[in-house]
Amino acid sequence: MAVRVGVIGTGWIGSEHIRRITDRVGGAEVVAATDIDADRAARAVAGTGARVLAGSEEVVAADDVDAVVVTSWGPAHAESVVAAVEAGKPVFCEKPLATTAEDAQRVLDAEARHGSRLVQVGFMRRFDPGYAQMKDVIAGGGVGTPLMAHCVHRNPTVPESYHSEMAAQDTAVHEIDVMRWLLDDEISSVQVLTPRRTSHRFEHLRDPQFMLFEMAGGARVDLEVFVNCQYGYEIGCEVVGEEGTVRLPEIPGAVVRSAGRRSTPVLQDWVQRFAAAFDTEFQTWADEVAAGTPTTGPNAWDGYAAAVVTDAAVRALHSGGVVETGIKARPAFYA
Amino acid sequence: MAVRVGVIGTGWIGSEHIRRITDRVGGAEVVAATDIDADRAARAVAGTGARVLAGSEEVVAADDVDAVVVTSWGPAHAESVVAAVEAGKPVFCEKPLATTAEDAQRVLDAEARHGSRLVQVGFMRRFDPGYAQMKDVIAGGGVGTPLMAHCVHRNPTVPESYHSEMAAQDTAVHEIDVMRWLLDDEISSVQVLTPRRTSHRFEHLRDPQFMLFEMAGGARVDLEVFVNCQYGYEIGCEVVGEEGTVRLPEIPGAVVRSAGRRSTPVLQDWVQRFAAAFDTEFQTWADEVAAGTPTTGPNAWDGYAAAVVTDAAVRALHSGGVVETGIKARPAFYA
Amino acid sequence: MAVRVGVIGTGWIGSEHIRRITDRVGGAEVVAATDIDADRAARAVAGTGARVLAGSEEVVAADDVDAVVVTSWGPAHAESVVAAVEAGKPVFCEKPLATTAEDAQRVLDAEARHGSRLVQVGFMRRFDPGYAQMKDVIAGGGVGTPLMAHCVHRNPTVPESYHSEMAAQDTAVHEIDVMRWLLDDEISSVQVLTPRRTSHRFEHLRDPQFMLFEMAGGARVDLEVFVNCQYGYEIGCEVVGEEGTVRLPEIPGAVVRSAGRRSTPVLQDWVQRFAAAFDTEFQTWADEVAAGTPTTGPNAWDGYAAAVVTDAAVRALHSGGVVETGIKARPAFYA
Amino acid sequence: MAVRVGVIGTGWIGSEHIRRITDRVGGAEVVAATDIDADRAARAVAGTGARVLAGSEEVVAADDVDAVVVTSWGPAHAESVVAAVEAGKPVFCEKPLATTAEDAQRVLDAEARHGSRLVQVGFMRRFDPGYAQMKDVIAGGGVGTPLMAHCVHRNPTVPESYHSEMAAQDTAVHEIDVMRWLLDDEISSVQVLTPRRTSHRFEHLRDPQFMLFEMAGGARVDLEVFVNCQYGYEIGCEVVGEEGTVRLPEIPGAVVRSAGRRSTPVLQDWVQRFAAAFDTEFQTWADEVAAGTPTTGPNAWDGYAAAVVTDAAVRALHSGGVVETGIKARPAFYA
Repeated sequence: MAVRVGVIGTGWIGSEHIRRITDRVGGAEVVAATDIDADRAARAVAGTGARVLAGSEEVVAADDVDAVVVTSWGPAHAESVVAAVEAGKPVFCEKPLATTAEDAQRVLDAEARHGSRLVQVGFMRRFDPGYAQMKDVIAGGGVGTPLMAHCVHRNPTVPESYHSEMAAQDTAVHEIDVMRWLLDDEISSVQVLTPRRTSHRFEHLRDPQFMLFEMAGGARVDLEVFVNCQYGYEIGCEVVGEEGTVRLPEIPGAVVRSAGRRSTPVLQDWVQRFAAAFDTEFQTWADEVAAGTPTTGPNAWDGYAAAVVTDAAVRALHSGGVVETGIKARPAFYA
Repeated sequence: MAVRVGVIGTGWIGSEHIRRITDRVGGAEVVAATDIDADRAARAVAGTGARVLAGSEEVVAADDVDAVVVTSWGPAHAESVVAAVEAGKPVFCEKPLATTAEDAQRVLDAEARHGSRLVQVGFMRRFDPGYAQMKDVIAGGGVGTPLMAHCVHRNPTVPESYHSEMAAQDTAVHEIDVMRWLLDDEISSVQVLTPRRTSHRFEHLRDPQFMLFEMAGGARVDLEVFVNCQYGYEIGCEVVGEEGTVRLPEIPGAVVRSAGRRSTPVLQDWVQRFAAAFDTEFQTWADEVAAGTPTTGPNAWDGYAAAVVTDAAVRALHSGGVVETGIKARPAFYA
Repeated sequence: MAVRVGVIGTGWIGSEHIRRITDRVGGAEVVAATDIDADRAARAVAGTGARVLAGSEEVVAADDVDAVVVTSWGPAHAESVVAAVEAGKPVFCEKPLATTAEDAQRVLDAEARHGSRLVQVGFMRRFDPGYAQMKDVIAGGGVGTPLMAHCVHRNPTVPESYHSEMAAQDTAVHEIDVMRWLLDDEISSVQVLTPRRTSHRFEHLRDPQFMLFEMAGGARVDLEVFVNCQYGYEIGCEVVGEEGTVRLPEIPGAVVRSAGRRSTPVLQDWVQRFAAAFDTEFQTWADEVAAGTPTTGPNAWDGYAAAVVTDAAVRALHSGGVVETGIKARPAFYA
Repeated sequence: MAVRVGVIGTGWIGSEHIRRITDRVGGAEVVAATDIDADRAARAVAGTGARVLAGSEEVVAADDVDAVVVTSWGPAHAESVVAAVEAGKPVFCEKPLATTAEDAQRVLDAEARHGSRLVQVGFMRRFDPGYAQMKDVIAGGGVGTPLMAHCVHRNPTVPESYHSEMAAQDTAVHEIDVMRWLLDDEISSVQVLTPRRTSHRFEHLRDPQFMLFEMAGGARVDLEVFVNCQYGYEIGCEVVGEEGTVRLPEIPGAVVRSAGRRSTPVLQDWVQRFAAAFDTEFQTWADEVAAGTPTTGPNAWDGYAAAVVTDAAVRALHSGGVVETGIKARPAFYA
């Protein structure tokens, strides 16, 4: 009865998800996997009973694959997702859904042709208990109509391969999705300000960046992206509504009093921070796939919107000015 | 390669653990189960591929059962555990290990005869991230030699079947174990004070109770047990050392500002509070069983000590005075 | 129009109060002072325009002294207070009102003869904003009938002159008063437990001490007194009622995130901690004296009760057992 | 020996300061006051012994006035301050120092002619203990070179007379001063974004506003001004440096647990929030005036800079674009 999953791409995150599905998700098992490096694929499925297939087409086509997980290289995501949709199989695609708006549009078109939604995109924050509580409060009217949101996204350090555009593409993309969801609105424009640079960075990188988003309904979201903040990994978010505000909880830690100070540890990476969110994300997906109901996580439209806004943010970084995203209202198909 | 588990007792907690092992623990699977109600056992293993056996002897003896989980009625625990030890199989026993000190002693004797440790007792708090951080701080000398600890254990309400002795047996038993572990010392005496009773309780129940423990090394632990506190489920713990203190973190929640107040939700039950601890507990146990190394969780001695101290606490409730536990130093076998 | 104050005793606290009345309290001025060391008195009033008098009788008798502040050596308090009452003058007496129950009784008798209340005792915590909020919450029924309270009173260090009995007399006396006030009840018995001693203390001192108070109505109060806790000065208090709890706020400080930790400073002494409470205490007293209304701060009965309970606590420390305070219900005169 | 103060303007804030100097500040007394409404002046000094003078010239000229406090109508401030400087008297001017940059320049010119600094401007936040701790941390290198700051300034409601430009002139002006001080740098440009308006406001008002400041050294400051936030009065500030961040503490309150929530009260007005800061501000000023040393609080240059930046912010609100403040580096005279 378990959902039989085929995995396309077995790099770090693919291997993580294979372990997750195997070890921590009920009602799902990995039965097949592929990777451009077949040895890596073999190592990733060792001990799971899954077999290694030659390519993504084989995974999508396999009779015993009920659903597909796409965790390959970003630019290859859209093609695999479209193939899965055309095969009528539910597909979970790690973020990004696509690295260009055109590719994302292809996924929307494929789902439209298919006639129902099959795609979920891996924005795991929607499954974080703190964000979920915020969503409940906002959707329940607990703070009134949202007017503003203030966000921070900090990493202790990044490797040299991290470049300035990744502040939007890899980092801010999480807030782009989660703020669209929390505020239930599309992002209409983006601006990226560049504060004084930290000296703790590789020369080529603009860090920190301060991003300003305007929602279609007029709410404003600001976001500090600071990926070499040194002290730890931390995510902050406060939504300000007409009657109150709601804030993402700080991650707790044992409180030590000593030597004149009261202190708690700060997490050092996102894997710790969102481990529970990833588990809940996959469990929920597996349950919904098993039930045959449409998945309720972020869908192809969310992936498309993230691609469009991320693109605009990169252009805004380059231009220094306000960039319109040009995104349309959400189609009824994705309501 | 997965550890094949046989489960004795498929009531609420047994069924929970079957689901946990099946769905959220890697490297372990349930292959057999038994219960005095065979239909209940069948329901508990539905969809897992495990078979129902006639009794605990059959589970322990089954060739394909590598390790045993005991989640039957408390008074039956010791017998099943002894049987598993005599069969040379690792056994995880939900708390209590035994409901009398004599029964607990039988388990110690069985392990002594076997010559190595096979038993883990289900005190899941040691696997809670907050307590684990406390342990690290204390063991690392971060607050100096412990002198005192202040604990609270609150439930919103309890059913009528909960009686005054259960404050020690079912509720305080968790603190009895976790404080022995945090302070790395045995409890030498107990006293139970009875504050004014809450009016929100069934007539027969002493609630709240305020328990005072003295450790062999002289540290003092106090514990508020209040199982009809109305407002929520909450666990508090602060250990006071010669140079500082360390406190269990409060469970975070989205912070709402509205109508002149800043507020966060409080959890309402222990299942939510310790869900992650249960998962970590079983994953760690399964990993250690698979590795063939002794399990590092609470052992039979810890189960014995909890039984002895719980017993003393019940006598202290009845007598009103200080009751010596009479517990010996931990044998080298359990060092 | 200002209240003209005469001060008896110009040691550290007397000098502090002279400066307070002169500099930070409106509607009051110091016009006379005395001390066994006349030079010290002269230094204490320098720049205030007040004159030095020969003794406490002269201060009480002076025509231009409307109200008296007693800040002499503790054992001398009662005599000066009685004299002020007999002269019909409002008198503010620093804690303790008396160092023996007999002396405190003399003050009660003097007020009874006088026929109205003139005495306020310097328990400043009732004027701390945090405690005041707690009082409002409890008195307003916000947590239901109080059942328990958990308190801590920590100093970083004490000088060698601090002896074991002072844990009750000088330190716990503040909680003795404030808990009587918060719970609106008398303390009927005391027990003092002696946890393992900290090694950071002078040899003669029992530190920490853990005190247990029972209220006449059955509520239980526990109090950690730890005067060599090293890390800072900290006061904690949580009152647990039938429907909820209320807790004294932690003193805030700028939150620094750095090097993997989130931390805030802890205060190092009680002068900082209660500076605002002292100011409010004196301003309120001066306003009420000026208005000719009875002062609403802690009165002679509160001073008497503190003396009786403190006494019992000292005996409890010596005996190790439960000591009944023997205190009667509050007379209608002090309702 | 007390500093004898003359007060120009006895409206609400002038009367407050007269009471403050009389009642809560040591070493200072009000000896004269004036107001366009002589009756109001008489009421303001009632009971203080101060006399009412005909106009500001008389106050400045009075032989027994050692120092002047200017709390008149904003547009009249500069003239009185210049007069005091020309008379060689220390002068404390409530914010704003001037309502135009030209008027502020006149004060700078007067001090230059006089040859030493005599002016302090009433930016009381520098005397708030939380901000003072932040200053210490930043100046001590505790978070590294500042790169960004995130601020919020919220009032529950404002009266109809509050108009959109006052968001800069009356509200943000406090952050303009305190951020210049914390970051030890001038503000080079301003932009004002206008999020969706709250419906809880008078029709003419843009509320909230989101302001963006760039410092000469490249750090960026963002500020939410939301003066009809409904829930309470709250000030937030986090400075982000190269190695860490420091945050203004939240105002504490008694923590109540009840009905499934943990909550604390939020203050409702700035008078409560900054009462202690005002007292410290005046005490420090009086002490420094008495000592004859230059006052160390915000000076005329700070008043000038605030006027210039506030002006730029108003233009930025109207234009929607980035407005350069054109402010020069701080002259050595004000170092």
